[in-house]
This record gives sequence, C-alpha cells and structure tokens, in this order.
Amino acid sequence: MKKSIDYSLYLCTDRGLMTSPTIEQSVELALLGGASVVQLREKDCSSREFYELGLRVRAITDRFGVPLIVNDRVDIALAVGAAGVHVGQGDLPCRAVRALVGEDCIVGVSASTLEQAIEAERDGADYLGIGAMNATATKTDAALVTPEQFEEIRRAVHIPLVVIGGVNASNIAQYRRMGADGAAVVSAIVAQPDVEAAARELLTLWRG
Amino acid sequence: MKKSIDYSLYLCTDRGLMTSPTIEQSVELALLGGASVVQLREKDCSSREFYELGLRVRAITDRFGVPLIVNDRVDIALAVGAAGVHVGQGDLPCRAVRALVGEDCIVGVSASTLEQAIEAERDGADYLGIGAMNATATKTDAALVTPEQFEEIRRAVHIPLVVIGGVNASNIAQYRRMGADGAAVVSAIVAQPDVEAAARELLTLWRG
Repeated sequence: MKKSIDYSLYLCTDRGLMTSPTIEQSVELALLGGASVVQLREKDCSSREFYELGLRVRAITDRFGVPLIVNDRVDIALAVGAAGVHVGQGDLPCRAVRALVGEDCIVGVSASTLEQAIEAERDGADYLGIGAMNATATKTDAALVTPEQFEEIRRAVHIPLVVIGGVNASNIAQYRRMGADGAAVVSAIVAQPDVEAAARELLTLWRG
Repeated sequence: MKKSIDYSLYLCTDRGLMTSPTIEQSVELALLGGASVVQLREKDCSSREFYELGLRVRAITDRFGVPLIVNDRVDIALAVGAAGVHVGQGDLPCRAVRALVGEDCIVGVSASTLEQAIEAERDGADYLGIGAMNATATKTDAALVTPEQFEEIRRAVHIPLVVIGGVNASNIAQYRRMGADGAAVVSAIVAQPDVEAAARELLTLWRG
C-alpha cells in the first residue's frame, strides 16, 4: 500500500473553515473532485468524537480507495484503522510514532527546515509535509519555507514531499514544477462554495 | 504486575491546582507521602510536551515502584511505557483501548452509572474510577454518584473500584468502609501547602 500512495491532491480537513455542513460531506465532495489523500485534523473535540468521526470518514475514504491519515493522534489512527498518521514538530517524535504503528502504516512528518526533514527521513517518515510555503490564516505560527529551502530539502531527502501552506489554484502548478510530489490543501478546497469543483480544478492544474 | 496493583492512594495530577513549581516535584512529594498510583492528566499541552513530561514522570514512578497511568492518550501511554491508561466516557471506548494496548497494560475507565460500570468491566477494564462522589471545582461536569449507587455498582462488578471527586481527609475513611479499593485524589494532595504530609495523612486515614 505504502509504495502506491498518490500524494497529488492531499486534502486537510478544517472544521472551522469548511463550507459544507459536515466534515463527512466536505471529504466526500473533495474525493469526488479527485483528492487523492485525506488528512483528518481535529484539535477541539473529545477523543471519543474524533474516534467516531474517524470511523465515519474512513468508511468514505475506503469507498474511494483513498488513504485516510489522522493528524497527531496515533491512538485514534490505530483505533479507526487509518492508513497513516501525520505528526508535526509539536506532536510525538517520528521515531516513537514508528515504534507504535509498525512498518505498514504511513507516517508523515511536518518539516520547515532542512534539519527537520533529514531527521524525519532518518527516523522513518514515509513522506514529509513541507511548509508553510506561504503565510496563511490557517496556521499563523508556521515558519515560512522559501523556494530555495524547498530545493535544498528536495536534494537532501528521498521520500515524497508534500507542500503545504497557502496552496491554491494560482500557485499549485508551480509547486509541481519545483518537484513536489503532492500539494496539501485546506481552504482552497474546504472553504470554497463548490468543494468538488475546487478540488477538480486544483487536480487539473497540478497535472498540467 | 496488574494483579498486584495497590490502588489505595491514587494521585491524579492537575497542573492548574498544584502548589509545587513542577508536576515532577508534585508527583515526587506525593510518592514520598505514600501515593500508590500516579495518573498523569494533561489537557492543554502539545502531544510532544505531554510525551516528554510522561518520560520524566515515569522515571520518578519507576524509582518508587509505583505504576504510572496516563489519562486519555493511549498513544502517549504506550510511547512512554506507562503501566496503564485511564479513559473517561468521552475518550476512546474501553474496547478500542484494550485492542490497542494488549492484556498487560492496565486499563481504567471512569463510570458514574451502573450501566457504564458493567459495560466497562465487560469491555476489559481492569479497574473503575467511580464518581464524582462529591461536587468539586476540578470537574464541574461530572454526574454525582450517591453512596447507594456506589453500593449498587460494588455488588454488580468484580474489578477494583477507585472513588473520585472531592475525596479529602474528612471523608476518605468513609469510602474505604463503603468497600472502595482506592481513593483518587487531586486537590487534597497537589493543592496542599505540604504535598508529602497531605498524602501521608490521607494514606493513614485510609488505612484506619
């Protein structure tokens, strides 16, 4: 499974930004538009709510044959049978995550510096989320990554790189040209009036 | 290990209430006073901070030969090698927790009704936290458990029962007489000016 992941259009959920009434509807519309990975990110609900949402979203991603990745919570990723888990620099260390999930689970790590990228690859990450590529309203605390820094990371590590942070229709093609393996998108999908059309347009632009 | 757990004086940490400058100091003083279990509860820090704190606290509890139990976060319990995990009704379901941690890890479940208690025992809990026995400032949302309800639970389940909620020097002996296997204490230990003496007094009163 891990070898065949298509990171092209990597949807990150955000309950606060979405135009759909539910996360499930938002995810389904994005998948209809061509999202190839779904990351479920919940920071302000109980573990039980996150778990139950995870089970419902997994039923949807399974139907589309798309991997579900859970943000931060390794226990919830395992409990819902997600394909993977994504951790930031403030979450469990990659090495500890890998020890918990075994080799068959996808582990993604956020990196905004060359050092973080090299460390994560060494500690067993399957892919990296590189950003923020642009300043965004979603994550105001993330360090910016310049195109030069991205190129430096791209040369240094050998696992897929997914750019994140302000990726939208005006810039997604540029990230593919820079050698990214995928683009993670939050508001340019879930905050759009037509979620499915937004995802489809981004995927078309990505494919060029 | 699980068979020999002494639940008598079950310390729950609370960063907001403690008089010691650090959680580690608070835990060490309570252990010097005789706390027999330590539950680490953190709701407002990053996963990385919780993990690193867990590693430091585990070094202390190991030194005292006392089990460390992590609240809610099964992944952090596993990553720090805690003896157990404690889940409330808003956390991962007991059955899902047991599937993640295996048989050797202690699983505790909070229950405030007979139904919750019976379900948790059936789903593999090793012990129950029964409460709130009294209204407290710590958990204002918890349903109250009357002595009659406690007795009903005590007759219905066969795993250890730890009372929680407003347990202090004035009432701890009464809970032992009611058949509790231990008393979980937050502010009557960590919020006291002399944490070690407070724990020692509670244990003396418990032992009668």
